[in-house]
Amino acid sequence: SANKKLLVLPGDGIGPEVMHEVRRVIDWMDRRRHVSFGIEEGLVGGAALEAEGSPCPDRTVERALAADAVLFGSVGGPRWDSLPFDKRPELGILRLRKELGLFANLRPAIVLDPLVDASSLKPDIVRGLDLMIVRETTGGIYFGEPRGVETMANGKRRGVDTEVYTEDEIARVARVAFDLAGKRTGRLTSVEKANVMQSGRLWRAVVSEIGRDEFPNVELSHMYADNCAMQLANRPKQFDVILAGNLFGDVLSDLAAALTGSLGMLPSATLGAPDSSGRRNALYEPIHGSAPDIAGKGIANPCAQMLSFAMLLRWSFGMEEDAKMIETAVEKVLAGGLRTADIMGPGTARVGTSVMGDAVLREL
Amino acid sequence: SANKKLLVLPGDGIGPEVMHEVRRVIDWMDRRRHVSFGIEEGLVGGAALEAEGSPCPDRTVERALAADAVLFGSVGGPRWDSLPFDKRPELGILRLRKELGLFANLRPAIVLDPLVDASSLKPDIVRGLDLMIVRETTGGIYFGEPRGVETMANGKRRGVDTEVYTEDEIARVARVAFDLAGKRTGRLTSVEKANVMQSGRLWRAVVSEIGRDEFPNVELSHMYADNCAMQLANRPKQFDVILAGNLFGDVLSDLAAALTGSLGMLPSATLGAPDSSGRRNALYEPIHGSAPDIAGKGIANPCAQMLSFAMLLRWSFGMEEDAKMIETAVEKVLAGGLRTADIMGPGTARVGTSVMGDAVLREL
Ligand SMILES: CC(C)[C@H](C(=O)O)[C@@H](O)C(=O)O
Ligand SMILES: CC(C)[C@H](C(=O)O)[C@@H](O)C(=O)O
Repeated sequence: SANKKLLVLPGDGIGPEVMHEVRRVIDWMDRRRHVSFGIEEGLVGGAALEAEGSPCPDRTVERALAADAVLFGSVGGPRWDSLPFDKRPELGILRLRKELGLFANLRPAIVLDPLVDASSLKPDIVRGLDLMIVRETTGGIYFGEPRGVETMANGKRRGVDTEVYTEDEIARVARVAFDLAGKRTGRLTSVEKANVMQSGRLWRAVVSEIGRDEFPNVELSHMYADNCAMQLANRPKQFDVILAGNLFGDVLSDLAAALTGSLGMLPSATLGAPDSSGRRNALYEPIHGSAPDIAGKGIANPCAQMLSFAMLLRWSFGMEEDAKMIETAVEKVLAGGLRTADIMGPGTARVGTSVMGDAVLREL
Repeated sequence: SANKKLLVLPGDGIGPEVMHEVRRVIDWMDRRRHVSFGIEEGLVGGAALEAEGSPCPDRTVERALAADAVLFGSVGGPRWDSLPFDKRPELGILRLRKELGLFANLRPAIVLDPLVDASSLKPDIVRGLDLMIVRETTGGIYFGEPRGVETMANGKRRGVDTEVYTEDEIARVARVAFDLAGKRTGRLTSVEKANVMQSGRLWRAVVSEIGRDEFPNVELSHMYADNCAMQLANRPKQFDVILAGNLFGDVLSDLAAALTGSLGMLPSATLGAPDSSGRRNALYEPIHGSAPDIAGKGIANPCAQMLSFAMLLRWSFGMEEDAKMIETAVEKVLAGGLRTADIMGPGTARVGTSVMGDAVLREL
């Protein structure tokens, strides 16, 4: 009996290729671990646009709402780059975040020992790096109104976006970050531009209040976004959990990911609010994009997608043991010297997507 | 006769200390190079707040408007951190940018050969790095209305900021960037989030139009801000000139500066529009802040402030030869092995602010 309902959305570019390897892991789990997943596959991004005229069809949203968890691939490609706003593949992920209320995006930036040399930073600066960025993903300038490009009285154009945060929106994502920090080293850095932005001023105030009232044991510090970018580049290991709004979180989490040098290895989770039974909407996706330049060549790294599935097991189903099993299998394969092209280093062997998948399955 | 009117604003923290070394360079130029500067010193930031009750007194603005160029130190410190918005030292620089119409902030990120090892990045990744970020500084979310923190009907707070760009604002800063790119390697990367933001969509369209119509020989590319942060961290040398709005420019220019590992070396220029005679308002300041933790100890690096003065000579007075002379003097001192604490490396000698100043003067 399929008691765990998954919606799988491979999307565009390398999405389907790397998702294929995850399907093999799921099959293995079904057989060996006696966990039964009910899996549906759906359309999103350019793939959905081509087939159904929209990058995020209503049917995909409905099925996502009905699923226990969504495993997302990646969307986008040059083919759709010049389309108007409401047809762009990116709308796929943006709409899912909004309609499923996925407000807390968790993005680990971890440097595994065998991959220290893949980083553009000096080994000493990144060895052992293990930080988590908690990014707000249903508010801020991504969704604020008014927004648009208008023509003014003088005939010239003017583009407007609105950054809005209510204290409730800030408080709920702050709680996720405090909670995580409490379970890790107990340190949280909250990031904004309170010296320039009013929403940043409120952000700082609310995060401080939540910390004082609900998480007195977590050590909270505040940092301006520009300084945070600097500190990430120079001394990333000073951080444990970083909390940021939608826009700064977008830039800083990609920066943190890039510092590891192994984008193809990094998963993410985006969570909604738990209901009274503890169930929450959730979507899991790799940090990397659809990488159209290498799509179809069989050389993409499937690890980030596999590790996204591990995060899914942990966060949506509390299957910590199974999550760890997958993570350990991936680490062992790397320690054994296999590498996809993106993380090649001296003395390692270059393999393609499916050989990497084989190796992980063998470890399992 | 003092034909070049400078307003010097040392500000807070290490500002006055490093400015002192620049004054010695100016004195030397007065004597040896027969250039006569009429120098006034004014108040800004915390220093102005203490003395006159405002971080940017009207008198400072008036004197800045009357000067041919402003040499700015740095502002801010923990002492003023909890003050309300309109009293904060940062208002000093924000108000000057706005009132003087300083819309184009030029921030070079350069790795000098003797300082390659100061970077947290591997030497091969940063050796020879020489990029320029052109950041818009009078528009965007820094100044857009409406903005504020309000209480909603339900008693909860809500923080709002508005990102606005008109096509004229985009076009004029784009021209500065294209012009610079044309004089360098002919490559310009324009950065926004056109996949999410409406102002970004307009930004991309206008920059493309200016390129097509006025700078067909500059090779223009567009990049999302999150990707640009990644690319800067992994392959910074792919860039020549980067153009960005106020907010992304703030974060990315600090990131680029941090990658060099030598913040204490980096100057910047912020320029207004030239009038019919070619005269333009302009302000020059180091990238680094007021560094309250090391203020008063005589150990701050005066080079960024000195190199800001070199930029001033070049951009405001067309004194290329003198600018180069200062830049060369600084490089020679570094090549000779002297270092302030911030840029120490193996086999170099640690000196304080004034010994560094002495050494530069000796080279001159
Ligand atoms: C594809 C894009 C709209 C998206 C974002 O900006 O949120 C992406 O960059 C991400 O971080 O998931
Ligand atoms: C001090 C602050 C307001 C300022 C800014 O955000 O512009 C600073 O970070 C800068 O980059 O000059």
